[in-house]
Amino acid sequence: MATSPQVAIIMGSRSDWPVMKHAADMLDKLAVAYEAKVVSAHRTPERMVDFAKGAKAAGFKVIIAGAGGAAHLPGMTASLTPLPVLGVPVPVRDGLKGIDSLLSIVQMPGGVPVGTLAVGEAGAKNAGLLAAQILALNDADLAARVDALRQAQTDAVPESVED
Amino acid sequence: MATSPQVAIIMGSRSDWPVMKHAADMLDKLAVAYEAKVVSAHRTPERMVDFAKGAKAAGFKVIIAGAGGAAHLPGMTASLTPLPVLGVPVPVRDGLKGIDSLLSIVQMPGGVPVGTLAVGEAGAKNAGLLAAQILALNDADLAARVDALRQAQTDAVPESVED
Amino acid sequence: MATSPQVAIIMGSRSDWPVMKHAADMLDKLAVAYEAKVVSAHRTPERMVDFAKGAKAAGFKVIIAGAGGAAHLPGMTASLTPLPVLGVPVPVRDGLKGIDSLLSIVQMPGGVPVGTLAVGEAGAKNAGLLAAQILALNDADLAARVDALRQAQTDAVPESVED
Amino acid sequence: MATSPQVAIIMGSRSDWPVMKHAADMLDKLAVAYEAKVVSAHRTPERMVDFAKGAKAAGFKVIIAGAGGAAHLPGMTASLTPLPVLGVPVPVRDGLKGIDSLLSIVQMPGGVPVGTLAVGEAGAKNAGLLAAQILALNDADLAARVDALRQAQTDAVPESVED
Amino acid sequence: MATSPQVAIIMGSRSDWPVMKHAADMLDKLAVAYEAKVVSAHRTPERMVDFAKGAKAAGFKVIIAGAGGAAHLPGMTASLTPLPVLGVPVPVRDGLKGIDSLLSIVQMPGGVPVGTLAVGEAGAKNAGLLAAQILALNDADLAARVDALRQAQTDAVPESVED
Amino acid sequence: MATSPQVAIIMGSRSDWPVMKHAADMLDKLAVAYEAKVVSAHRTPERMVDFAKGAKAAGFKVIIAGAGGAAHLPGMTASLTPLPVLGVPVPVRDGLKGIDSLLSIVQMPGGVPVGTLAVGEAGAKNAGLLAAQILALNDADLAARVDALRQAQTDAVPESVED
Amino acid sequence: MATSPQVAIIMGSRSDWPVMKHAADMLDKLAVAYEAKVVSAHRTPERMVDFAKGAKAAGFKVIIAGAGGAAHLPGMTASLTPLPVLGVPVPVRDGLKGIDSLLSIVQMPGGVPVGTLAVGEAGAKNAGLLAAQILALNDADLAARVDALRQAQTDAVPESVED
Amino acid sequence: MATSPQVAIIMGSRSDWPVMKHAADMLDKLAVAYEAKVVSAHRTPERMVDFAKGAKAAGFKVIIAGAGGAAHLPGMTASLTPLPVLGVPVPVRDGLKGIDSLLSIVQMPGGVPVGTLAVGEAGAKNAGLLAAQILALNDADLAARVDALRQAQTDAVPESVED
Repeated sequence: MATSPQVAIIMGSRSDWPVMKHAADMLDKLAVAYEAKVVSAHRTPERMVDFAKGAKAAGFKVIIAGAGGAAHLPGMTASLTPLPVLGVPVPVRDGLKGIDSLLSIVQMPGGVPVGTLAVGEAGAKNAGLLAAQILALNDADLAARVDALRQAQTDAVPESVED
Repeated sequence: MATSPQVAIIMGSRSDWPVMKHAADMLDKLAVAYEAKVVSAHRTPERMVDFAKGAKAAGFKVIIAGAGGAAHLPGMTASLTPLPVLGVPVPVRDGLKGIDSLLSIVQMPGGVPVGTLAVGEAGAKNAGLLAAQILALNDADLAARVDALRQAQTDAVPESVED
Repeated sequence: MATSPQVAIIMGSRSDWPVMKHAADMLDKLAVAYEAKVVSAHRTPERMVDFAKGAKAAGFKVIIAGAGGAAHLPGMTASLTPLPVLGVPVPVRDGLKGIDSLLSIVQMPGGVPVGTLAVGEAGAKNAGLLAAQILALNDADLAARVDALRQAQTDAVPESVED
Repeated sequence: MATSPQVAIIMGSRSDWPVMKHAADMLDKLAVAYEAKVVSAHRTPERMVDFAKGAKAAGFKVIIAGAGGAAHLPGMTASLTPLPVLGVPVPVRDGLKGIDSLLSIVQMPGGVPVGTLAVGEAGAKNAGLLAAQILALNDADLAARVDALRQAQTDAVPESVED
Repeated sequence: MATSPQVAIIMGSRSDWPVMKHAADMLDKLAVAYEAKVVSAHRTPERMVDFAKGAKAAGFKVIIAGAGGAAHLPGMTASLTPLPVLGVPVPVRDGLKGIDSLLSIVQMPGGVPVGTLAVGEAGAKNAGLLAAQILALNDADLAARVDALRQAQTDAVPESVED
Repeated sequence: MATSPQVAIIMGSRSDWPVMKHAADMLDKLAVAYEAKVVSAHRTPERMVDFAKGAKAAGFKVIIAGAGGAAHLPGMTASLTPLPVLGVPVPVRDGLKGIDSLLSIVQMPGGVPVGTLAVGEAGAKNAGLLAAQILALNDADLAARVDALRQAQTDAVPESVED
Repeated sequence: MATSPQVAIIMGSRSDWPVMKHAADMLDKLAVAYEAKVVSAHRTPERMVDFAKGAKAAGFKVIIAGAGGAAHLPGMTASLTPLPVLGVPVPVRDGLKGIDSLLSIVQMPGGVPVGTLAVGEAGAKNAGLLAAQILALNDADLAARVDALRQAQTDAVPESVED
Repeated sequence: MATSPQVAIIMGSRSDWPVMKHAADMLDKLAVAYEAKVVSAHRTPERMVDFAKGAKAAGFKVIIAGAGGAAHLPGMTASLTPLPVLGVPVPVRDGLKGIDSLLSIVQMPGGVPVGTLAVGEAGAKNAGLLAAQILALNDADLAARVDALRQAQTDAVPESVED
């Protein structure tokens, strides 16, 4: 299975992991190597700058960044790397159900894009899948695994509404 | 200069073009070939299905889809192709300033991702740039052009607040 | 009593059934035959297209479609059939309390209507009743049953605020 | 051509007519007879009660009701007639862009459905079309006209983004 | 002590009573006679019309109306009586936290006022108090009781943040 | 014609007058004497305290308070007088369309009610009318004028949608 | 260790203390003396006026004010003192998740600033820290403690996503 | 008159200046020296890091940061300096009226405060004033100027609603 990580999954806090783990699970399913770590835009800004500026040289191809509240990690990372950055709004306690995270991530100014996914677990899962779809553009084996997963997903939808 | 189109820019209505043109302009700047056309999820659902199912075979690598109101084009396209789909919420007259378009595009269920950009022109511009960043993963020349554009963008920010 | 189903109740996921079941219950009460099944716009787009395009020929008169998040099933179905389509926004976990579903369903562009009901169980119940009211336009027996149900509903409102 | 009106278009104020006229225009295109008049839930509650209670006996089949702000006309009408009621949220000056109208119309309690369309002109147009789709269930000629309109609508979507 | 009821507390459903009871409790504290009953705008529209049109003749001075979702009871009552009507938005299950009720009650058109209180229990309590303040304009004894309650309320605010 | 003012119309800024004037116009129509002045909760807090504490002794019966943005005038006035206070949310430039004003006025805690009207001109007009309805509880002549105005308002609603 | 209190923490109700305690905890950590007490803008307006007008003379340097719903305490305090006022929106039961508190606090008119923090516990914690940062401008020892706390905070962010 | 700048006014784009100029105007009125410049979190992240890390050593005491959309400048600056940071949400074209900017600035996580002001011009003006109030804690002359400005502001509120 894949060896050196192509995808970085970063998040603002260890408490984001239960949500962001769904991105990792999806990449596991598709046999895409990744590295997951905590990088806080606000509490470790220099770690973030170092990570983002070095991400391409480190061999990463796609960065998935999750954060909650005034979520600056995805956008700031995107400002410091030419790699595609995918953002996942994480709903937080005492936050506003994630609408604050969503707007903080998606409403980026022209020139610094973040491809934003849905709030919460579905968004994290989809960030993993979209990263794989991007990598599959140049990896026919991965493209086949993506196709298989999508087909399985289609096949798994029952017609009947009850067991 | 690139010849056959790698990026498709589709939109739900010709009235979306003034916004979506910013995606095209960005691709023009980066010398990425694209094709732009109107494909309505609601008024031409079969054209949409045909386009989306055939997009990969047609040689496209990334699809940019813009729509307003109950914006279904990006998500439906994403359900019919393994290519990365980027969504642009277009604000429409009598719409709710684009918050309806944004939520209709970004809140996709697990399994069918749309990388969503900001509402309006900034989002369209960024969709073009993100598409280029994705393609640049395997095109060093394009990567260099992206780097140059980003550098020019940085250099163009004056310190002074007035002319 | 009606025999072959006149109403189709479709939903994007089996997890929508606890909400959508209220539409079925209402139709049961009014002795309107229906068929309920899972048809996902995003995970089974072709099943959806086949269903929607064939719905009229299959003898359905009204389609009730429920979905959550970026809810595209009602609107896409409406784009593929001349039958009246009624939409039910289903609130989902990690969604935004259903406001995302509501806007994704109701804000359809001119030319493709979805008659949208309230978020959640009340909306599902009302979709069943509105379907019956539509069918009752040409079914005097059903009209009488609708009248009786409405009268019973009125009679069941106590004046006293406590038991 | 239909002669006696099958559809009633009612609205809370004459100032709603520029929006609601789009429902009338659609019915004109489809040769469905209608009657349009002002019936205010708040300023003429008794006219509303009389109208709604008598609508079925008067021969109407479908009621389209448009209103703005705290929009009570569609829901109150629905409480007084077994006919299908379609609601159109009208954005008003000093209102909240129509989100107040939308929620006032769509969030009906179980037992009294209003099939709600989009805010503004698109919603009015679609109310006319949905009324026609309902009537077409028992009018093959009208069904054919609806099919033709939908086909024309599809044919009118250009592929090219510019003239 | 007042004898015949001066205040009517009406609500759309018995399920609103746990919230609306706070209006009754406040009136009890101030020894203002009231009558509380269920009057549904949607399920018992004629009971509502009869009640509202007869309220003044029945001797009521102020009407407190609580409702949830697309809350039409306060505004419709206000359209049928010259008495002051106070509205209480009740949050309901599957509703949108009461923002739908609030907008449905407060955004009345010019000519038909509803004095709207806060969403939920605080609003119900305040509707009772505001009704008393209105009645106290011509009842010096009640005015004294209102003053005493307000003074007690002030005195009951401890400076210390903990017991 | 009334002589000494029974109603005070206060507002946070002279720029609120074009909206609040509609309250004055309504009171003029109903021949209710009023006094209108600027009292800013934020810029003239002591003037506000003096006004509110002295309002009852000054002979006022009802206070209408309009303000925009973080609108504290209605609630603070209500905390300082036992008179009924009616609040009007005024939309302001750079404000959030009045939703900020509305929530700042209506969401008062238990014990200090503000009867809140709609955002903007309709709300101001209705504050004037509700004040009159309150005063009419003990003024049969005013009650007759209110009834006449309401009747005229009803009579003025044309059935026809166009001139 | 500081002796006489430089920071006042005030709140509208004892029920706000579980949230506001986080401001106190932060000040405790930084050895900044404070006084915490309940001062209700609505139930004890005169206590509020006395407190705010006397706060500077009493030796306070910064005021932290927390409140929920229609939260007037921070803004009213700011109108009565030249000291910097920091506002904390407290989410309350039956409130709208704190968005009402936030807008009531932050949307102050020009001339009366409130430096507003996030909704809930994070905001309270940050109000304490921002107060300390302000005081540290003229207290090198405190500045060193702030620096140490920030450094500890940075050091405490683990890279690994799991224990 | 002050000489070396104590306040830095930074903003994400030269287009923010018409709003942010109101902060400068207020500081001019109070004779507080400031420096205003463009520092983009997204387009010039390194300039931002350098500025923020060096701000204290450069002699600044307070930083005012304005930005629109996904507004990261205030929070990122706050993460890189122990100085108090005041944030101003700037409404932008194609943005969501500033609610996106507001949430992106105010909803900071515990440990990194931004004192947030109102959306737009009033917020900018108030950021200038709050900065002065902070500096006045240790500058009796400035405190006197602040008091004078506040008194003039109070005196300038006319009682009469019209000229």
